Amino acid sequence: MSYLPTFALGPPNCGTTILSTTGQNCDLLITPMPPRLIRPRPGQPHEVGNLQPSGRGYDHGITTFSPDGRLFQVEYARESVKRGTTTAGLKFRDGVVLVCDKRIASRLIIPESIEKMFKIDNHVGIATSGLVADARQLVARARVEAQINRITYAASVPVDILTKKICDFKQSFTQYGGSRPFGTALLIGGVDENGIHLFETDPSGAYQSYHAGAIGSGRNTVIDYFEKNWKDNLTLNAAMKLGLEALRNANDQELNRDAVEVSVIDAEGYRILDRAEVNKQIDRLKPLEE
Amino acid sequence: MSYLPTFALGPPNCGTTILSTTGQNCDLLITPMPPRLIRPRPGQPHEVGNLQPSGRGYDHGITTFSPDGRLFQVEYARESVKRGTTTAGLKFRDGVVLVCDKRIASRLIIPESIEKMFKIDNHVGIATSGLVADARQLVARARVEAQINRITYAASVPVDILTKKICDFKQSFTQYGGSRPFGTALLIGGVDENGIHLFETDPSGAYQSYHAGAIGSGRNTVIDYFEKNWKDNLTLNAAMKLGLEALRNANDQELNRDAVEVSVIDAEGYRILDRAEVNKQIDRLKPLEE
Amino acid sequence: MSYLPTFALGPPNCGTTILSTTGQNCDLLITPMPPRLIRPRPGQPHEVGNLQPSGRGYDHGITTFSPDGRLFQVEYARESVKRGTTTAGLKFRDGVVLVCDKRIASRLIIPESIEKMFKIDNHVGIATSGLVADARQLVARARVEAQINRITYAASVPVDILTKKICDFKQSFTQYGGSRPFGTALLIGGVDENGIHLFETDPSGAYQSYHAGAIGSGRNTVIDYFEKNWKDNLTLNAAMKLGLEALRNANDQELNRDAVEVSVIDAEGYRILDRAEVNKQIDRLKPLEE
Amino acid sequence: MSYLPTFALGPPNCGTTILSTTGQNCDLLITPMPPRLIRPRPGQPHEVGNLQPSGRGYDHGITTFSPDGRLFQVEYARESVKRGTTTAGLKFRDGVVLVCDKRIASRLIIPESIEKMFKIDNHVGIATSGLVADARQLVARARVEAQINRITYAASVPVDILTKKICDFKQSFTQYGGSRPFGTALLIGGVDENGIHLFETDPSGAYQSYHAGAIGSGRNTVIDYFEKNWKDNLTLNAAMKLGLEALRNANDQELNRDAVEVSVIDAEGYRILDRAEVNKQIDRLKPLEE
Amino acid sequence: MSYLPTFALGPPNCGTTILSTTGQNCDLLITPMPPRLIRPRPGQPHEVGNLQPSGRGYDHGITTFSPDGRLFQVEYARESVKRGTTTAGLKFRDGVVLVCDKRIASRLIIPESIEKMFKIDNHVGIATSGLVADARQLVARARVEAQINRITYAASVPVDILTKKICDFKQSFTQYGGSRPFGTALLIGGVDENGIHLFETDPSGAYQSYHAGAIGSGRNTVIDYFEKNWKDNLTLNAAMKLGLEALRNANDQELNRDAVEVSVIDAEGYRILDRAEVNKQIDRLKPLEE
Amino acid sequence: MSYLPTFALGPPNCGTTILSTTGQNCDLLITPMPPRLIRPRPGQPHEVGNLQPSGRGYDHGITTFSPDGRLFQVEYARESVKRGTTTAGLKFRDGVVLVCDKRIASRLIIPESIEKMFKIDNHVGIATSGLVADARQLVARARVEAQINRITYAASVPVDILTKKICDFKQSFTQYGGSRPFGTALLIGGVDENGIHLFETDPSGAYQSYHAGAIGSGRNTVIDYFEKNWKDNLTLNAAMKLGLEALRNANDQELNRDAVEVSVIDAEGYRILDRAEVNKQIDRLKPLEE
Amino acid sequence: MSYLPTFALGPPNCGTTILSTTGQNCDLLITPMPPRLIRPRPGQPHEVGNLQPSGRGYDHGITTFSPDGRLFQVEYARESVKRGTTTAGLKFRDGVVLVCDKRIASRLIIPESIEKMFKIDNHVGIATSGLVADARQLVARARVEAQINRITYAASVPVDILTKKICDFKQSFTQYGGSRPFGTALLIGGVDENGIHLFETDPSGAYQSYHAGAIGSGRNTVIDYFEKNWKDNLTLNAAMKLGLEALRNANDQELNRDAVEVSVIDAEGYRILDRAEVNKQIDRLKPLEE
Repeated sequence: MSYLPTFALGPPNCGTTILSTTGQNCDLLITPMPPRLIRPRPGQPHEVGNLQPSGRGYDHGITTFSPDGRLFQVEYARESVKRGTTTAGLKFRDGVVLVCDKRIASRLIIPESIEKMFKIDNHVGIATSGLVADARQLVARARVEAQINRITYAASVPVDILTKKICDFKQSFTQYGGSRPFGTALLIGGVDENGIHLFETDPSGAYQSYHAGAIGSGRNTVIDYFEKNWKDNLTLNAAMKLGLEALRNANDQELNRDAVEVSVIDAEGYRILDRAEVNKQIDRLKPLEE
Repeated sequence: MSYLPTFALGPPNCGTTILSTTGQNCDLLITPMPPRLIRPRPGQPHEVGNLQPSGRGYDHGITTFSPDGRLFQVEYARESVKRGTTTAGLKFRDGVVLVCDKRIASRLIIPESIEKMFKIDNHVGIATSGLVADARQLVARARVEAQINRITYAASVPVDILTKKICDFKQSFTQYGGSRPFGTALLIGGVDENGIHLFETDPSGAYQSYHAGAIGSGRNTVIDYFEKNWKDNLTLNAAMKLGLEALRNANDQELNRDAVEVSVIDAEGYRILDRAEVNKQIDRLKPLEE
Repeated sequence: MSYLPTFALGPPNCGTTILSTTGQNCDLLITPMPPRLIRPRPGQPHEVGNLQPSGRGYDHGITTFSPDGRLFQVEYARESVKRGTTTAGLKFRDGVVLVCDKRIASRLIIPESIEKMFKIDNHVGIATSGLVADARQLVARARVEAQINRITYAASVPVDILTKKICDFKQSFTQYGGSRPFGTALLIGGVDENGIHLFETDPSGAYQSYHAGAIGSGRNTVIDYFEKNWKDNLTLNAAMKLGLEALRNANDQELNRDAVEVSVIDAEGYRILDRAEVNKQIDRLKPLEE
Repeated sequence: MSYLPTFALGPPNCGTTILSTTGQNCDLLITPMPPRLIRPRPGQPHEVGNLQPSGRGYDHGITTFSPDGRLFQVEYARESVKRGTTTAGLKFRDGVVLVCDKRIASRLIIPESIEKMFKIDNHVGIATSGLVADARQLVARARVEAQINRITYAASVPVDILTKKICDFKQSFTQYGGSRPFGTALLIGGVDENGIHLFETDPSGAYQSYHAGAIGSGRNTVIDYFEKNWKDNLTLNAAMKLGLEALRNANDQELNRDAVEVSVIDAEGYRILDRAEVNKQIDRLKPLEE
Repeated sequence: MSYLPTFALGPPNCGTTILSTTGQNCDLLITPMPPRLIRPRPGQPHEVGNLQPSGRGYDHGITTFSPDGRLFQVEYARESVKRGTTTAGLKFRDGVVLVCDKRIASRLIIPESIEKMFKIDNHVGIATSGLVADARQLVARARVEAQINRITYAASVPVDILTKKICDFKQSFTQYGGSRPFGTALLIGGVDENGIHLFETDPSGAYQSYHAGAIGSGRNTVIDYFEKNWKDNLTLNAAMKLGLEALRNANDQELNRDAVEVSVIDAEGYRILDRAEVNKQIDRLKPLEE
Repeated sequence: MSYLPTFALGPPNCGTTILSTTGQNCDLLITPMPPRLIRPRPGQPHEVGNLQPSGRGYDHGITTFSPDGRLFQVEYARESVKRGTTTAGLKFRDGVVLVCDKRIASRLIIPESIEKMFKIDNHVGIATSGLVADARQLVARARVEAQINRITYAASVPVDILTKKICDFKQSFTQYGGSRPFGTALLIGGVDENGIHLFETDPSGAYQSYHAGAIGSGRNTVIDYFEKNWKDNLTLNAAMKLGLEALRNANDQELNRDAVEVSVIDAEGYRILDRAEVNKQIDRLKPLEE
Repeated sequence: MSYLPTFALGPPNCGTTILSTTGQNCDLLITPMPPRLIRPRPGQPHEVGNLQPSGRGYDHGITTFSPDGRLFQVEYARESVKRGTTTAGLKFRDGVVLVCDKRIASRLIIPESIEKMFKIDNHVGIATSGLVADARQLVARARVEAQINRITYAASVPVDILTKKICDFKQSFTQYGGSRPFGTALLIGGVDENGIHLFETDPSGAYQSYHAGAIGSGRNTVIDYFEKNWKDNLTLNAAMKLGLEALRNANDQELNRDAVEVSVIDAEGYRILDRAEVNKQIDRLKPLEE
């Protein structure tokens, strides 16, 4: 296969320009992302919420520690993530599966335009939760880092290196003044020479490798479900079924057949399932008991 | 047709210079825009308004998250949009229709000088709502991005790429200090190789693709009307009728025959209807029942 | 006529140097402007005034939206304009007339030295109201923009393009921190290939095209008068009479024969009437009834 | 006469270096200026004084408008001027006379070292009131501007152009943050091809042309006196007498024969009267009635 | 062995890029680090905690001393370290042993991915406690400094020089505004020509050389244990046993056989023990008495 | 005499490097200065002191005027000077005498190391009062300015020009933010072609020429004494006697024979008296009456 | 002896890199310094402490004078020094002796690693007290200044010049915003052509020459002891004895034989005494009476 460089460059403070050389061979085709409307959700208790003055003034700047050594602005950015769509990822025998049930507020919205999963390179995909526009900047940067690696070493970027670079970038927004942390968490899944990887990152720039993980509003429910049910060496079908079940659990209602999104990264690369394939997987689930 | 480059460049902090090489062939002819006077409107409840100290100090800077993970300054910028003129857009069989009923405060004002819709390139148009002077900056930037694409690839810019670039620009004003977010929402309609597109963007830099959407003070009423009445594969005439009805609904009074503006983007490009054509469409509406 | 370039350049933060090559042919001869003393005027209610803490802290920085989406600093800059001299402009059959009755606080002041109207180029004039020293910066910038257009295109700048550029410059002072908005409104009148133009601009960077408009403390009275009396296709004499009547109405006293200023922009270019011509026009007015 | 360039250059934030090439021919000989000690003066009511919190927080930064459109920091800078020595200027048949009665706090002070009047160029002089060290910066800048004009056009700078440049410089300190306005007012007198000029400037950057004007603590008394007594076409002697009378009036006591300073700008250039000449003029005044 | 340069460079404010030339010979292979989730831990009293306003406003900026000469922000950063995993280091006859019992919150987490110890160069290792993402920046910088030394002097960096450089870097974040101190402590162990070294550093940039030291939440317990039990000239096995006992003491529960990490730096260089070796050491410990 | 250039250069924000080419001929030999310990002095009322909130918030920034036009930070800097050692200067027939009685807190201090008087050039000396470390910066700058003049014009700098340059430098610290005014006053004495000069400068950048002046805590007493006793054309001995008497008066106790410092600038240049010469002058004083 | 250049350079804001060319000949060998742990010490009253709001808001920024002309941040930095280890210095017949009793908090700490005294050049040494990491920056800068002098003049730097340079550097941190003053005092001892020197410096940038001085928590006790007992022309042994006695007095307990550090600078250069030599000196002291 001939190598067609696709690259993206730009100063961090004014968005990033993604230039793709041709339409057909472009691996980095950019699909539009849906807006993330921030509204308090009724019936969902806030951990820090109700705007109690819990920070006592130590929580207005990113360059300020609180007396017990916490960075409140980073913790508040995590709250942004907790307001986001639940997104889950889990390893199977040959790779990683990412699943998510997008919220569709109106029949006028085109579900395909709401994208929570992004191809970064042939072997890496990222699922996001939190502020949509912030996520886009991190995805763009990840794509750039992947291409820099290709151009510099003529090799695809190792998944852990890529994760570290994105998280170093995030960290700098927690230590230097004049900006705010990214209000976005990422699930980074990929397959490289060192094996199969699934990383969960948060706004502080910390990351951890998981067998199965989740981000967004339903994270804890999904993690509980995975702790009980995930096991090693799942088949792809089993993994997808498990992921969708966990998602359904978190939402506590049947999945929206128009809005569920599933992507797979394995030896054959990153691919996003089409509507028919997704619904075939949903059909395999037992109906929710009332 | 010979290609006459029309380009615009300039530092973001001092306006953008649009230079058009000739008068006749200039596709980017700039028409003046009316001022957007900001006044509280009587009889219209404010969601956040009455200046309640709801933000408790977390709402003064763009680089500060609130304890529940919200960016108040971005939400306040959305309030600016909610004070703007209602503008609607909807897809039809061959393209996109944009409609709006401009507020004319005095018979001394020249209605044609109040422009809510802008041609960005042959195949893309933008309708705006919110702070007029802010909108102008985004329109200018969109025109520049469209021309950069033409010069770099000798091809018109895909509508989703253009939308992403404008929204990445908006996002940077929500993360870095020293400035404020744009107080403007955009409806971006266009036709390209990938089909017909209608994007709705907001001050956070988020965007979503719609079959039919709206921005400004009457957004919710229009969206309700569209959810009930919009269907696929409308003819141009049906789409214009539907859009005007929705607008009339939102204003709850007959349309102002001097101030309604309609533009169409389809395979033949962007065109704005003249007064006679617009009024022909208004005549087709049934009178409002008292 | 040979073209003698007259140009002006300088960094925005330290005034602008206007260099004119010769004395005789210099179109941009700079005339001194009177100071604008800011004092509360007795017997005139303030809309926002009495220093009520209406802004609740959202009104100290230009980079801060209030909870209901307003930019208080821009609105306060508009108050500056409302404290300024009333200035009116109106279209007639062949061009635009600008009129103003300057306040002369002392017989020691030389009335000719108080200039409210400025020639920008042969075909454009600007009348100002608000902070005098701020106005001077915008006038200087307008002259520069007009000359840049001449040098780049060997053509006079279209009036709407000039207006847009000045207003884009104004807008940047409402979005970026470290400075304040301009406390000045402008009436921009001109004649170009596209016809006769009269634009009213405000400190937000918004602008609108009018048949007849006004700025300054008596704006509303003048606008009311014009709405009742202005009609299309006035002769020059009729337009001047109408303008002076409106001004007299706003001041509610006879015009000061030493301080009224009138300028005309038509096919023959910008000209300012001399004292005799102005007084001839004043003589045509019927005396004010007590 | 051969032209000996005398020039001055330097960054605005660290004073200005005036280099004069030779001692004998140096027109810009710099004379030291007395310090302006800031103390509340007993028995003199303050307009804004008593430190009432009249500004309610809108008066701490130069980049902030108050709700009624005022720039408090500029108004406070004007108060600085009102605390300064009274200085007057008036036109006569052939030029301008500047007069001032310097306050000498101690017999140990050398009166000649307190300079309130400065030669800018052969045909222009400036009298100052307010913060002494601020005044020195403006005087230095005026001298530089005068020399730039000589070098660029081989002509002396028109007085109104010079005034405009100094005031544009002042204005920039009222719009951009990080510094404060100049606490100094200037009387700029000069004679050029366009006639005889006397400009009064204030800290906002506004200026006005006067037949006779004044700055400093006794401004209003002097202006009243001039309004009653100044007339056109005075002889030099009459003008000096009138100016000294006005000054004596403002101080309400006989003039200090050691501290009165008088300078004249006419067709023969700028000259400062020596002690004997000044006292000859003082002798011509009728004694003050008790 | 041939020298393969592995280097890392990058601006401090956007993370550091570590480029490794080949996979096999790369001594600086980067292993991912687990996220450090900041949560108040129940049943553990906070020294400064409960958010008492103890700092009285002297604790918000790094550039501010308190009246008794303390730098509160530095002390708060130390609190961040006290919230971190307990990590211990101790010298033995031939080198340094570093031990730590990682907290594994879920069986879904891959323990190997949580790295608390890092190889800096062949002869130096660093164990960290506190904010994970901050630690990564210091580790990256240490690796760069080590390589700079190799390139400049063709010699491995002395351990004390390396410690001083990292701590000078830390110090600069305690004196200059615009950022915050690093919320991380480091144990730096190494062997060089001058002998065996173990340094303990803290967020202020201070460091001290220890025979046996510890950082993190259980620091005081471990130090007490070492003061009683550490002696000179331990064998490697004895040192590992002592370190693990101290750790078990601090945690007050049996060690987690999946999460304990042990590394050794001696004449043969830095090596991290594999799971089997670690568990062999754990097996040698006497069971904890109830 | 051959000219040996001695020069000093350096950025203002990191001290100034004075390089002297040789030891023997170096006129600018730098002598160390004693520290100025800031302590409230018992039994001495403070004019502004007791920390009354007299500034009401207008006194925290140098870029803020108070409502009555004062610059509080400049006035507070003057308080710094009032806390300093009393230093006096007076003219005599042939030059200027500077005297001061240094405070020696301990017999361990080496009195010669406390320097209040500095040679700037052969013909100029400066005596300082206020913050010692600030004074050093101004002295260094004065030496640089003197050398620049020598290098540029091959002539010694006129005393008034030097004074103006130092004071312009001081003024810039009262108008631009980000730093504070210098807490130092200077007495600048010198002899040049224009005669004998003694300037008193203050933190605002103002200066005045005196026959006899003083700075520091006892300024008013010394000035009173000089007003009664100074006369023209004193001999050197008479001037020294008068200065020492004034100093003794201000301190209200006998002079400290180890700590009095006297320097003289006349046609023979700047020289500092040795201990024996000083004490010979002290011996000529009549004892203080109890 | 051949001259081996050892130099150090680096930007002030990120520590200083000291490169030594070889190990054997390196005069500037860097020894690690112990951390300075900041803790309130029980039973020791604080002068300013108890966090009383004594500064009333004038004490938060280095660029702000208090109403009585004090710089609170500089005074608070001095408090930092008062919390430091007591360090003393005294002159003897041939040079300077520096002594200090280091606090060793644990037997695990390696006393030699806690360094309070540093060789700057062959003829100069510095003893420090206060914030350890701050001290390191000043020591590094002093070494650089010493080497710059060697390279520029091929001569060792005079001790007073070196002191002045370090203190000018310190002063700049008390006048310009964005950083804080150094929380460190220095005793600078040295021998040069001009004799024997001992300087005491403080955070303000002030310095004074002493026969015998001290810094740190026990400063006043040591100074008292020296005032009573120091005399001229001590032998080295007598000076060491006197210094150690003073130190023991300040600590009010026997000296720690493992932690006392003594260094001597005389004609033979700077040398630090080894443990045996130090203890020989301690043995010569009479036991403390109970």
